[in-house]
Amino acid sequence: MKKQLIIALVFVSWLTFPSLAQQALFGGTEIVSPEIHENHTVTFNVNAPEAEEIELSGDWMPAEGWVPGSVNMVKDDKGLWSHTTDVLAPELYGYAYLIDGVRTNDPNNVFVSRDISTNTNILLIPGGQADLYKVNDVPHGSVTRRWYGSPGLDMTRRITIYTPPGYESDRSSYPVLYLLHGAGGDEEAWIELGRVSQIMDNLIAQGKVEPMIVVMPNGNVSQQAAPGEGIRGYYKPQFMEQRTMDGSYEGAFMDIVNFVEDSYRVKSKKSHRAVAGLSMGGFHSLHISRYYPNTFDYVGLFSAAILPNQNVSSEVYQDIDGTLLTQMENGYELYWIGIGKTDFLFNNVKLYTEKLDGMGMPYTYRESDGGHIWKNWRVYLSEFTPLLFK
Amino acid sequence: MKKQLIIALVFVSWLTFPSLAQQALFGGTEIVSPEIHENHTVTFNVNAPEAEEIELSGDWMPAEGWVPGSVNMVKDDKGLWSHTTDVLAPELYGYAYLIDGVRTNDPNNVFVSRDISTNTNILLIPGGQADLYKVNDVPHGSVTRRWYGSPGLDMTRRITIYTPPGYESDRSSYPVLYLLHGAGGDEEAWIELGRVSQIMDNLIAQGKVEPMIVVMPNGNVSQQAAPGEGIRGYYKPQFMEQRTMDGSYEGAFMDIVNFVEDSYRVKSKKSHRAVAGLSMGGFHSLHISRYYPNTFDYVGLFSAAILPNQNVSSEVYQDIDGTLLTQMENGYELYWIGIGKTDFLFNNVKLYTEKLDGMGMPYTYRESDGGHIWKNWRVYLSEFTPLLFK
Repeated sequence: MKKQLIIALVFVSWLTFPSLAQQALFGGTEIVSPEIHENHTVTFNVNAPEAEEIELSGDWMPAEGWVPGSVNMVKDDKGLWSHTTDVLAPELYGYAYLIDGVRTNDPNNVFVSRDISTNTNILLIPGGQADLYKVNDVPHGSVTRRWYGSPGLDMTRRITIYTPPGYESDRSSYPVLYLLHGAGGDEEAWIELGRVSQIMDNLIAQGKVEPMIVVMPNGNVSQQAAPGEGIRGYYKPQFMEQRTMDGSYEGAFMDIVNFVEDSYRVKSKKSHRAVAGLSMGGFHSLHISRYYPNTFDYVGLFSAAILPNQNVSSEVYQDIDGTLLTQMENGYELYWIGIGKTDFLFNNVKLYTEKLDGMGMPYTYRESDGGHIWKNWRVYLSEFTPLLFK
Repeated sequence: MKKQLIIALVFVSWLTFPSLAQQALFGGTEIVSPEIHENHTVTFNVNAPEAEEIELSGDWMPAEGWVPGSVNMVKDDKGLWSHTTDVLAPELYGYAYLIDGVRTNDPNNVFVSRDISTNTNILLIPGGQADLYKVNDVPHGSVTRRWYGSPGLDMTRRITIYTPPGYESDRSSYPVLYLLHGAGGDEEAWIELGRVSQIMDNLIAQGKVEPMIVVMPNGNVSQQAAPGEGIRGYYKPQFMEQRTMDGSYEGAFMDIVNFVEDSYRVKSKKSHRAVAGLSMGGFHSLHISRYYPNTFDYVGLFSAAILPNQNVSSEVYQDIDGTLLTQMENGYELYWIGIGKTDFLFNNVKLYTEKLDGMGMPYTYRESDGGHIWKNWRVYLSEFTPLLFK
């Protein structure tokens, strides 16, 4: 080796390389998909000369019940399949392909979100509310995955924690929002599908939200951690985990609060604690806040899964009316209930508000369009958090 | 609502639901893929009645140069395609499908790793070295994604940091390993493809490795953060980013060291600093350690991308022999060089060791089987870290 400068050329693993060569190039041109045009139409492209039929299914298309809309992509004479949408409104969207009947991802878009046992491609149309979901040029908080011991469950468990910009460098104490996921979710759901770090960074930068710590625990007591992140290793995630709603999670919830208050600079007072959740997490938040009726000044029920039950014996679910009454008498700042007009839980939530009306228990009610979807939960989070700790 | 218990039923987003219904079920049975059998053969399954041809490509198959091996899956009369492997040795493997010519992921396996612009499915065969890549029942460190200011680059940048078990609860100070990625990588590469948190947790639990902080920066100066995590938003990641090897990263590297030493309880001494990297990160480690010739007692070059250069003017690359000599005279504990026998960089690394021989500069040399692949870099990490800070 001469006394030359030393410089590098670097290759990727061989399994990636051929895909770069075969898939990414089409007639010598790199395929980009999705292409988001300036007018907010979107073109999808996939190179598949041998395929017979490719459908595109996106959550901006009208759905029929639980069946998403789809459209046939069009093949050109070189085997490139394409589809261009109409103008799309600002939003974080999900989509998938059906290639000769197999639901799969866009090979040219590396960005996916996992929802239970499915990876779905994502794309973002900027503007309006959707700008809250982007990483903007603002100070950024930190996101930590760590483990805590739960004496009440006799387990070590994984937890995701957002700390606001400045947390590491100042000496202040912060309020805490405990933010709970729905069935099929885990400690990754809110940070990944719910865009918590982007929403919080942006709302804090706009001065609309108090800097706070957001704690995202795993609400499935049969799980130590999100699929792939615990000792169960890799397995096919299930729609419903065991022991999610038998009272054990709510009964051991103070393990999480104690861990957070021992480990972070927080204001350990009711006035600086909030608990909120979506769907099953709304159910958990309802019960946690009345089972510990003098602990949280702020409660958020997002599309809460409130359904009559048959046969659960946990003491957590005893004397619901009595504990709600105690919670009301103890006082709180905000009891926030959000539900979509077409949510299958709409009537159940309505019945619950009527129950609260009957008791004279105050709450804030927010009715949105749409159903039981992440779009609504991101909106609810961005409307709920500005009301906290003021 | 009666005074009944309140319990939940919860649904997923509609885009996920049909895929659960259509893909996951086959003849009323849930499809599992991959199925890892007790004898460590593996069966892959995909339901695709309309597909004409499905190939499986896995990195356990013999490759030809950069072209991976593949095998045709077999379709049964109901449209289920399957393939069962021979017995596989313990390892973390990657695989992909080619469905009617389109490279895509296994719709029944949600676990993927991103390498540049490609998501590849992963599976783990336990045993031996591969047990280091699993989450085992041992104490776990924390992994934080946060942002730091780099005055030298006039940028705010994202960084991934592993802190060992106990860091948050004790008052000790820790040594630091700076661990650098290759071209096409970013601050997510080592944690995702390199299994850093699993390897460190396991080796620390076995008493083989000193508890240490592992700092994984982004080595692409044109990037603020990994694709999708910065203000550039979503885009197609490139094989080579701009300004990765023009000297600016090495020239501003002390910004990272200063940030870490200001922000964590670390031992701010040469004897407690290590720098190592793979491929381009090995190139960076070589130059960083000689450009700051009295800063690191431990240096690791993993399949380092050492190639003669033509035309880079940065002062970082001036007087290489002189600074190496200074580094040698200042002394260090370990200069570790690992390379695979079939790596395309083998001869370049060999020439570099001959250069060091000529200078009388001591190093530890490790020659492994295989080429320029993550399998080797995980092995090198698990062999290098036990030698640090002893």
